[in-house]
Amino acid sequence: MKAGIILTGDEILEGFVQEQNLSVISTELSAIGYEVMEVSIVRDDVEQIVSTIKRMCHFCSLVVLSGGLGPTFDDVTLEALSKAVSKPLQVDEQYLEQLKERFSKRYARVFPQDLTRQALVLQDSIPVENPSGSARGLYYQSDNGNDFLVMPGPPGELKDVLNNAIKIIRRPALRVVSRSLGFVGITEAEMNPFLESLRRRYPEVRMVTRADYAIGPTLYLTTSNSYEKDLRKIIQEIRARFGEFVFTTIGESFLALLVDRLRGRSLSLSVAESCTGGVLSSAIVSVPGVSDVYLGGVVAYSNTSKLSVLGIPKDILNSDGAVSEKCAAMMAERVARLFVSDIGLAVTGIAGPSGGTMKKPVGLVYSAIYTATYSDVYRTEYSGTRQTIMHKASYDLLKNLWRILQKI
Amino acid sequence: MKAGIILTGDEILEGFVQEQNLSVISTELSAIGYEVMEVSIVRDDVEQIVSTIKRMCHFCSLVVLSGGLGPTFDDVTLEALSKAVSKPLQVDEQYLEQLKERFSKRYARVFPQDLTRQALVLQDSIPVENPSGSARGLYYQSDNGNDFLVMPGPPGELKDVLNNAIKIIRRPALRVVSRSLGFVGITEAEMNPFLESLRRRYPEVRMVTRADYAIGPTLYLTTSNSYEKDLRKIIQEIRARFGEFVFTTIGESFLALLVDRLRGRSLSLSVAESCTGGVLSSAIVSVPGVSDVYLGGVVAYSNTSKLSVLGIPKDILNSDGAVSEKCAAMMAERVARLFVSDIGLAVTGIAGPSGGTMKKPVGLVYSAIYTATYSDVYRTEYSGTRQTIMHKASYDLLKNLWRILQKI
Repeated sequence: MKAGIILTGDEILEGFVQEQNLSVISTELSAIGYEVMEVSIVRDDVEQIVSTIKRMCHFCSLVVLSGGLGPTFDDVTLEALSKAVSKPLQVDEQYLEQLKERFSKRYARVFPQDLTRQALVLQDSIPVENPSGSARGLYYQSDNGNDFLVMPGPPGELKDVLNNAIKIIRRPALRVVSRSLGFVGITEAEMNPFLESLRRRYPEVRMVTRADYAIGPTLYLTTSNSYEKDLRKIIQEIRARFGEFVFTTIGESFLALLVDRLRGRSLSLSVAESCTGGVLSSAIVSVPGVSDVYLGGVVAYSNTSKLSVLGIPKDILNSDGAVSEKCAAMMAERVARLFVSDIGLAVTGIAGPSGGTMKKPVGLVYSAIYTATYSDVYRTEYSGTRQTIMHKASYDLLKNLWRILQKI
Repeated sequence: MKAGIILTGDEILEGFVQEQNLSVISTELSAIGYEVMEVSIVRDDVEQIVSTIKRMCHFCSLVVLSGGLGPTFDDVTLEALSKAVSKPLQVDEQYLEQLKERFSKRYARVFPQDLTRQALVLQDSIPVENPSGSARGLYYQSDNGNDFLVMPGPPGELKDVLNNAIKIIRRPALRVVSRSLGFVGITEAEMNPFLESLRRRYPEVRMVTRADYAIGPTLYLTTSNSYEKDLRKIIQEIRARFGEFVFTTIGESFLALLVDRLRGRSLSLSVAESCTGGVLSSAIVSVPGVSDVYLGGVVAYSNTSKLSVLGIPKDILNSDGAVSEKCAAMMAERVARLFVSDIGLAVTGIAGPSGGTMKKPVGLVYSAIYTATYSDVYRTEYSGTRQTIMHKASYDLLKNLWRILQKI
């Protein structure tokens, strides 16, 4: 069964407010087996909403609307739905009484006439309770086989109403199975030919790829429960072909798994950063509960701090320079000693936009991993903005750590 | 002039991924005077994209597309645009060479054939450079008066490409005057009554507020050049009323201004972080050219590192604990001495989700500023996720530094 979502609000279209409901609604609908075909964000304009509803009715059995249920002039969603399905709006007297009572309890003031609008319901529709606000949701099944779900726009209220609505709306007959596979150390382009062949051979499993530039590709698989076997076969084939690059088949976070792996081996970690300036450390502490693994780090942004805080010998800084293989290796070793950690990571380079030379261009980064038994240094030339270089360099180093963990 | 936006991606419609580009694109288009009429999020499906493009062409002079420029099977945006406007795609050989060179620099692996797709361009279109990735943007003006802008989907890349595109796209004839005012140390709610009165008195100036939770409210003013005088009056009135909180009236970045101010006073800076784990340092190094002001920092994530690297006396850690006024003050002083900087900043707290106690709940943060002549410690209880607490605490400390710079 197919669904369409209509969100209303000029403030979203003008970019002043970040849209927050879309992923909540689409996740819930997908989870019960709906295929979300389109999301349309339109102005608070009756005609535009009516025409969008009508258009979606052609290819969607469920049309979900959110926003525009408030008491002010620009709240026109119910009026539009009423027009689109040719059903009148009527006042729910019982709910109006409730509204009046609630209002007088919360504010010792006269009930504002405009609040009456929130007691309007579409004839023959089912109200959906809103525990967090006065605008209830509404569910309506039309005679032509189209279902409509209307929900308030404020994100907190939407979640509560959706929670209630999901229990009563018509559901697709099939149960949906989905998995999310994470890869590290390989690019989308390198995987594509094989994914294409899987797609041809298992047409009933929907495959979606997405690249997180800092980590690697994610592959989303979705199918109905009658094809769960195909989905399992795909995962088997991918494991056989790209096994070494797969870090999860159940949607876990790469960083959390890396930390788990370190914890499992009782390995502690510290980092020395120059050009990434704290980005590497922030990535590590984004994992909750990392403190038993991660001891801390030094941001040696200036040469003097490399010298005085990390104790990098002056002659290395003079001969090879701060952006060099030797300096990176030394930083990793020194920070491990300083924090008394099993592993020391280091990264030094030129994040730009200025500071590059012919021999050492912007984007050149040396990174290093030091342990008592194994060490490695990497040289990479990144392209991109200052922020991109910092992020890519930080994550690449963590990916290298992941890769060599078996060696240490 | 009217614009429509089409975002593609099954992963968004299925709720796997939170949409992030919409507000970025619509803010920029609105700022140069476009009226964004509709945003449509569609599947990675050629026919659906083609029909959406055609539909939007009826009421939009500019159609913006984002996503689907990658090298995999589900990247079909260019194919769809080519079909919709009946213009062929062709390989940009020169760009293909660049791609090959870049790939071999970052990965010592064979160039994957499928990456060639990222060198495809629409005939007669103008490529828009993408400094952060391999998928360039594309701008095309059709003979029927419709303009098209195509941009990659990954948020970091989209921002960079949009930045370049905004310089070359056709702009509404009516010159738009817009200003963006940044505030620090005040909330939207406190400003609102005054803003409402401005809105009534200067109805020709569009006002939109938006709160960046980490820094403060931003107020966007937009009008046509015939009402530029009104816009200036608004800024005057705001200066008279909220002058002390305004840090820019021309959209400058708060962090860049803070760094400028430190540079102007020849003050150097270092930081000691515990619970923010590098987020404070990353915020500082996000400003290009900060190295003459910022010397570096220590992430003292464990108690032993506070002791051994920063030299916090054991009895302070034992009596007051790592999350305390005394520890914060000491961290700031010690890091300033360690890096020989004029100013030392420190932050220590409980970012959660676990680790809180009755007396020291999750969200409790102490931060400190140390200089030879002036010092200060702040105690705040934040609410929100781990990430939110880290960001708010980091930015609040920088805002405090901004505020007290006049005293030191």
